[in-house]
Amino acid sequence: MAAAPVWSVDPRTGKRREQVAVEATAEEVDTAVRAAHAVRGALADRAVRSAFLRSAAAGLDAARDGLVETADAETALGPVRLTGELARTCYQLRAFADIVDEGAFLDVVIDHPDAGATPPVPDLRRHKVPLGVVAVYSASNFPFAFSVAGGDTASALAAGCPVVVKAHPDHPALSELVAKVLRRAAAAHVIPADVVGLVHGFEAGVELIGHPLVAAAGFTGSVRGGRALFDAAAARPVPIPFHGELGSLNPVLVTEAAAAERAEEIGAGLAGSMTLGVGQFCVKPGLVLVPSGAGGDRLLKSLTDAVSDTDAGVLLDHRMRDDFLAGVRERAALADVESPVTPGAGGEHTVSAGFFTVPADRLTEEGAYGVLLEECFGPVTVVARYTDEEQATAVLSRLPGNLTASVQLSSREAAGQGRGADLLAALTPLAGRVVVNAWPTGVAVAPAQHHGGPYPATTSTSTSVGGTAIERWLRPVTYQNTPTALLPRELLDDNPLGLPRRFNGVLER
Amino acid sequence: MAAAPVWSVDPRTGKRREQVAVEATAEEVDTAVRAAHAVRGALADRAVRSAFLRSAAAGLDAARDGLVETADAETALGPVRLTGELARTCYQLRAFADIVDEGAFLDVVIDHPDAGATPPVPDLRRHKVPLGVVAVYSASNFPFAFSVAGGDTASALAAGCPVVVKAHPDHPALSELVAKVLRRAAAAHVIPADVVGLVHGFEAGVELIGHPLVAAAGFTGSVRGGRALFDAAAARPVPIPFHGELGSLNPVLVTEAAAAERAEEIGAGLAGSMTLGVGQFCVKPGLVLVPSGAGGDRLLKSLTDAVSDTDAGVLLDHRMRDDFLAGVRERAALADVESPVTPGAGGEHTVSAGFFTVPADRLTEEGAYGVLLEECFGPVTVVARYTDEEQATAVLSRLPGNLTASVQLSSREAAGQGRGADLLAALTPLAGRVVVNAWPTGVAVAPAQHHGGPYPATTSTSTSVGGTAIERWLRPVTYQNTPTALLPRELLDDNPLGLPRRFNGVLER
Repeated sequence: MAAAPVWSVDPRTGKRREQVAVEATAEEVDTAVRAAHAVRGALADRAVRSAFLRSAAAGLDAARDGLVETADAETALGPVRLTGELARTCYQLRAFADIVDEGAFLDVVIDHPDAGATPPVPDLRRHKVPLGVVAVYSASNFPFAFSVAGGDTASALAAGCPVVVKAHPDHPALSELVAKVLRRAAAAHVIPADVVGLVHGFEAGVELIGHPLVAAAGFTGSVRGGRALFDAAAARPVPIPFHGELGSLNPVLVTEAAAAERAEEIGAGLAGSMTLGVGQFCVKPGLVLVPSGAGGDRLLKSLTDAVSDTDAGVLLDHRMRDDFLAGVRERAALADVESPVTPGAGGEHTVSAGFFTVPADRLTEEGAYGVLLEECFGPVTVVARYTDEEQATAVLSRLPGNLTASVQLSSREAAGQGRGADLLAALTPLAGRVVVNAWPTGVAVAPAQHHGGPYPATTSTSTSVGGTAIERWLRPVTYQNTPTALLPRELLDDNPLGLPRRFNGVLER
Repeated sequence: MAAAPVWSVDPRTGKRREQVAVEATAEEVDTAVRAAHAVRGALADRAVRSAFLRSAAAGLDAARDGLVETADAETALGPVRLTGELARTCYQLRAFADIVDEGAFLDVVIDHPDAGATPPVPDLRRHKVPLGVVAVYSASNFPFAFSVAGGDTASALAAGCPVVVKAHPDHPALSELVAKVLRRAAAAHVIPADVVGLVHGFEAGVELIGHPLVAAAGFTGSVRGGRALFDAAAARPVPIPFHGELGSLNPVLVTEAAAAERAEEIGAGLAGSMTLGVGQFCVKPGLVLVPSGAGGDRLLKSLTDAVSDTDAGVLLDHRMRDDFLAGVRERAALADVESPVTPGAGGEHTVSAGFFTVPADRLTEEGAYGVLLEECFGPVTVVARYTDEEQATAVLSRLPGNLTASVQLSSREAAGQGRGADLLAALTPLAGRVVVNAWPTGVAVAPAQHHGGPYPATTSTSTSVGGTAIERWLRPVTYQNTPTALLPRELLDDNPLGLPRRFNGVLER
């Protein structure tokens, strides 16, 4: 049987650009994983690791023009967005290099013996070690930031774990280019290139999650695909952690007072957020609770104007376009659902943005309206009009887990006069990030970031963006009664590496 | 259908002591979980939570004599061990109260806005919030420390999560008594007693893991039972974290130089560790690599003498006794397996300790000898005689994951002259705790403790003993652009609660 070709496709035309590679066979996946596993020791030294991450960032920076051109040809996301995304990706690699140098992620804890404790405490010294080879499943919608050199790869390498990346079929040519940059950066630090593997093909992704030497996985994609891989990870003879980001509705609640105060600003802001990147962000606001009455009407007018003015756009691939068109058709067919701006096909290869409205009480019914509480990828959102706050919170209580939950408050509510704190408390169980008077799109790379949330937002309690993403690829090991001569340097009393730690119960920084 | 009775049984006689309760129906499990969920807000205040934990410890201390008597009647573990285990349990509750007060577990991270970052960083403030109702599955072998008021319960309550405990059938009467103490301690702080639920019965345990309002689970028990519950947790419509401790062989490597230097001490120490608590510790050394030759022979002589002198003991229940006898019969039947002291039935209700020897090269064969690499609960261990270090490390490389891995080194090796560091590096991938010149039994409650390891030791990378056990029951939430008036007090710039945190990138302690 001939190997299946992997084509780079132009989503603006649906035409094949070039054959990039062939799909990896089970044997090739095995080879990639074994190669990565064999060289894991090359990442043991933290100074080497951080230098490698910085070289990777520099390499991507240097290759910017060609990378952006290829990325645009395969994703149609446009050079401006892609240049920004690449800069973010480089920033992220450097941020993880800093995290590696600081070493707080090692979570060093040292306890001297205490014969008086119950039971007695021997000499115990704990730090964290890398899990092993990490499988990274690239996302369609972030060809740089959540793909070959994205957050999963950066955090795994920072943790000391080699990676084998499963390329996304929407940008195979870019994946090859980025992998080459990473492998060259490794070589510059005498790290074998096999610390970064790359495979193509659906079946290769399935093989990867089942490989005995794969120790953990990171995934960004759909609920269906992510759940299948999560299930496979859990069903292994030796189950492994699966950190998947699957799907999110990202509800927004607009209070009556906020609508009265800033209807036009909120409507325009919502239009910008839901159509950004042709609605292909995992944190796109997909359900917006807007009060009935004059303020809400003004908000809708502003939203209608702004969405009407939005150009048609190209989605990442034609399957997504088909899914988008099917999704909006299904929603439009529901009774009491209206579309002030009808989302749908633009030209032959584009889609046009739009939104639906529905009375909020429909969303607390069992049955067909449930689809309105599911993510629809693309430039569309659902505006649910509520008559009182109780109705709005009843809708919120029916939502599955989310990456984000947002609220638009009036200045009085934001100042603590009114129900602002109660609303924040109602939103907190729904999501991993709660946003006030801003839009959820735009996920900053920062220590305090959390990009995760109750299932199906993510399959674990971890984050895939921000400094703490490194925690996913580590496990603690404690050394008991171990002579100083044999201890890892991280665990020595005199702290020669200057690590933040907990020493005999006291936090030291 | 009449409710199934739950009997308290005396393992010394196999006779029923009394009917303690009835097995919970699905409806009763639902009621317990809903009740716990409904009162979760009562644990929101950290000061109340830590006071509750201290009162629980005081309540257990005060009830000590009756608790130990009941525990001994149901488990035959003896008053000395049980008194110590209860003290450990109280110490653990108080340690978690201190952890709650300190607040480092909240992992507070605050980033002020930075318009110059790529992409720009808005105001972001992260801390951790409780997951919700935690299901706790009690262990047979630690009626106090890993049961109703054990580490899972203590850490979950410390995290702010109500618990519903599934009692172990080996100590239902004690479970009821301990639950009463906890519920009384809650009431003393005006916390509704339903923050601690208790259910009995196998089916109740299955119902519990599937309940939509159960947010996470902790388990200590067998590979078979634990894996079934892990699979059920992963198969839920909304999967939940399952922190299970399932099984561990706890290998020990004795170097030739160590045997030459301390053969008698090591043999006697091994005998003590493997027979402690009638071999019913999850960290019992179950495989010991001993060099062939004179030093190893002396070690075996010492082991033989000490194990021969060990009294027969009562196991926790008669099913365990049956399993132990079947397990030792299966191992004894293998060719080349000898038993210098034959383990087996003692009296009608007891078992006698023993051990097997086998040439180490047998353990690198496929097939029947694999059983020697599986845990056998009870007072038995396997001594594998190796002819060179390569053979010993070949055996180690075949082992599944472990809670502990130990090495006995000579004084020269311990001083860093020789292969000590290499051996530690070879043991580290095998386990969550590496022990040098000591025995793995005895798990101190301390910040640096790690009680977990690669599967099947545990089903996650977390620990069930020590301060970081609290991390299992929390998830991060980030507040973005949130007005000061609406922020949780934990996230205010001026740090009114005095929490350790990361503030604009800098660790503050």
